[in-house]
Amino acid sequence: MVKSPEAEHPINAYGYAARDTSGTLSPLTFSRRATGDKDVRFKVLYCGICHSDLHFVKNEWGMTVYPVVPGHEIVGTVTEVGSKVEKFKVGDKVGVGCLVGSCSSCESCANDLENYCRKQILTYGSPCFDGTRTYGGYSDHMVADEHFVLRWPENLPLDTGAPLLCAGITTYSPLRYFGLDKPGVKVGVVGLGGLGHVAVKMAKAFGAEVTVFSTTPNKKQEALEGLKADHFIVSQDPEQMQSAASTLDGIIDTVSATHPIAPLLSVLKPHGKLVLVGIPEKPLELAAFSLIMGRKIVTGSAIGGLKETQEMLDFAAKHGVTADIEVIPIDYVNTAMDRILKSDVRYRFVIDVANSLKAP
Amino acid sequence: MVKSPEAEHPINAYGYAARDTSGTLSPLTFSRRATGDKDVRFKVLYCGICHSDLHFVKNEWGMTVYPVVPGHEIVGTVTEVGSKVEKFKVGDKVGVGCLVGSCSSCESCANDLENYCRKQILTYGSPCFDGTRTYGGYSDHMVADEHFVLRWPENLPLDTGAPLLCAGITTYSPLRYFGLDKPGVKVGVVGLGGLGHVAVKMAKAFGAEVTVFSTTPNKKQEALEGLKADHFIVSQDPEQMQSAASTLDGIIDTVSATHPIAPLLSVLKPHGKLVLVGIPEKPLELAAFSLIMGRKIVTGSAIGGLKETQEMLDFAAKHGVTADIEVIPIDYVNTAMDRILKSDVRYRFVIDVANSLKAP
Repeated sequence: MVKSPEAEHPINAYGYAARDTSGTLSPLTFSRRATGDKDVRFKVLYCGICHSDLHFVKNEWGMTVYPVVPGHEIVGTVTEVGSKVEKFKVGDKVGVGCLVGSCSSCESCANDLENYCRKQILTYGSPCFDGTRTYGGYSDHMVADEHFVLRWPENLPLDTGAPLLCAGITTYSPLRYFGLDKPGVKVGVVGLGGLGHVAVKMAKAFGAEVTVFSTTPNKKQEALEGLKADHFIVSQDPEQMQSAASTLDGIIDTVSATHPIAPLLSVLKPHGKLVLVGIPEKPLELAAFSLIMGRKIVTGSAIGGLKETQEMLDFAAKHGVTADIEVIPIDYVNTAMDRILKSDVRYRFVIDVANSLKAP
Repeated sequence: MVKSPEAEHPINAYGYAARDTSGTLSPLTFSRRATGDKDVRFKVLYCGICHSDLHFVKNEWGMTVYPVVPGHEIVGTVTEVGSKVEKFKVGDKVGVGCLVGSCSSCESCANDLENYCRKQILTYGSPCFDGTRTYGGYSDHMVADEHFVLRWPENLPLDTGAPLLCAGITTYSPLRYFGLDKPGVKVGVVGLGGLGHVAVKMAKAFGAEVTVFSTTPNKKQEALEGLKADHFIVSQDPEQMQSAASTLDGIIDTVSATHPIAPLLSVLKPHGKLVLVGIPEKPLELAAFSLIMGRKIVTGSAIGGLKETQEMLDFAAKHGVTADIEVIPIDYVNTAMDRILKSDVRYRFVIDVANSLKAP
């Protein structure tokens, strides 16, 4: 009898998985592949909880296959390397973000943009080349091709650094690509959550003048004092928006609820760029006129390639950019998910996997 | 008694004007300012009819003050120049496009982008610095500051060249700015009207590989044989659209009716650009996901600055790019407007002003 590819995976693993659309996570025993020639195996120390984990465990994007072990902000210590691995050795601190594979032959891959490869393999819940599904970092250990493993900079904290593997690169990459990475450039950040608070820190580290836009005045103090933003604007206050008309070079819009973008376009200078990194469920309304009268751009950006992710980690280490987090044990994960739904976290939960995940 | 600024204009002029929202044009006598130090006065020879003239005479954009003399694709012969005019002399062939003024002190003006100056003065129907309104080219003569007057290249025909002053620069400028001006670049053109047919010719002149998208198969022959486009796709045929998925570097979308843009985004490569130059009345639907998964851009573009418009005319003359036109006498203008509404013109009407406009 032919074994399923899954059954052929010889290495026992365990973690927390959702088994149905309730999204409730509970312990699961599964298996991972043996360490291939180019593979790095590592013990998971910390794993951030991204809002997309929540979408995924509840199958809100319609592509979840259960059981699903989430987690794509993973930091750990190397325990084994394949014979042809060049970049890592046992004991190294490493990270894995949203990707563990790509076709390596398309134009995107050739340009270090694996994040735009149409055959990319996501870190969890994605069909793998061998027919199995990938399992994420809410688990005891990971194995991945070294190309998709990041060197962890020595002075970057493991816990507060973990969320950078998704939230960090998702904001760093568009700041770089769209020229919003220079001193004096005027950058807006819309929404002050997991992505938004890192966007503010990244933009400040580049030397930009940062304006935070929020729907309510509640976050003013934390934006200005906590995150050192330069300005704070209540986006639903027409007078405040009018006062900022045509002043910004670019905006990183992290909001994943449906929201009006016309007011955001109005605060852009001519040739300014509105970059969407949140994914609202419904289409947004776009008036052609608001783009044409100023050659303004609406665009989007998805994480970043591996080379750029490494560059981002090194930049974050150099400039002291980390996420504001709340460290939790893994058996708190369902409560954490509920709190994320209520935006009741400043700003990211990070699971202390090594000290809380118990072997079955 | 203080005279109105209008009354102080000493030079008699006449042309065709709309007097109410019927948009019906009839002869009008009015006046123009005396030739200032930097002004160029010229006899109008030809004037193209742009679709926006139609919107304007019917006050469809809500900003028309009657009477309005339309026309912003104007070619003529210089009859008088001010004492400080440097670029022109009597007898020169010249053109005036959509703009006759700007603030000359903002960042846009400093960068030869008068078209994005927020105080720009449109060629007709716009408040002028002296309190009067501007009158366009459906008239016997024009007067404008030399900065807003274009040198007419010697070998560019006056009649078929006139529409380039709006349709030409509107398509040339985004092709240039968004890097769609190189041999081998793959460019889509959506809609085959006044703007679209010039967009095809401009893109071909740059050496691009051009695909025309149309809602019906009717225009296939004229796209491929008449305009020398490389490919033709019926945009409402899902199979044809699928066959073009992820193939284009950029698209010039000239459609001014509300239309779905998701299918257009799907035929763009990663990092591809959808440039809107038509202005649909209602907002378009924009799914963030369709931008994010490929860092695609939706943008718009409005005509071009004066320096670039001159560059465009010189380019058109060198490469033989002109508009396909139907020359008409000025008393045919109301019929022409009706035919434009029915898309019954291949592709632009041009009024033979000098030979058909009679003095009152």
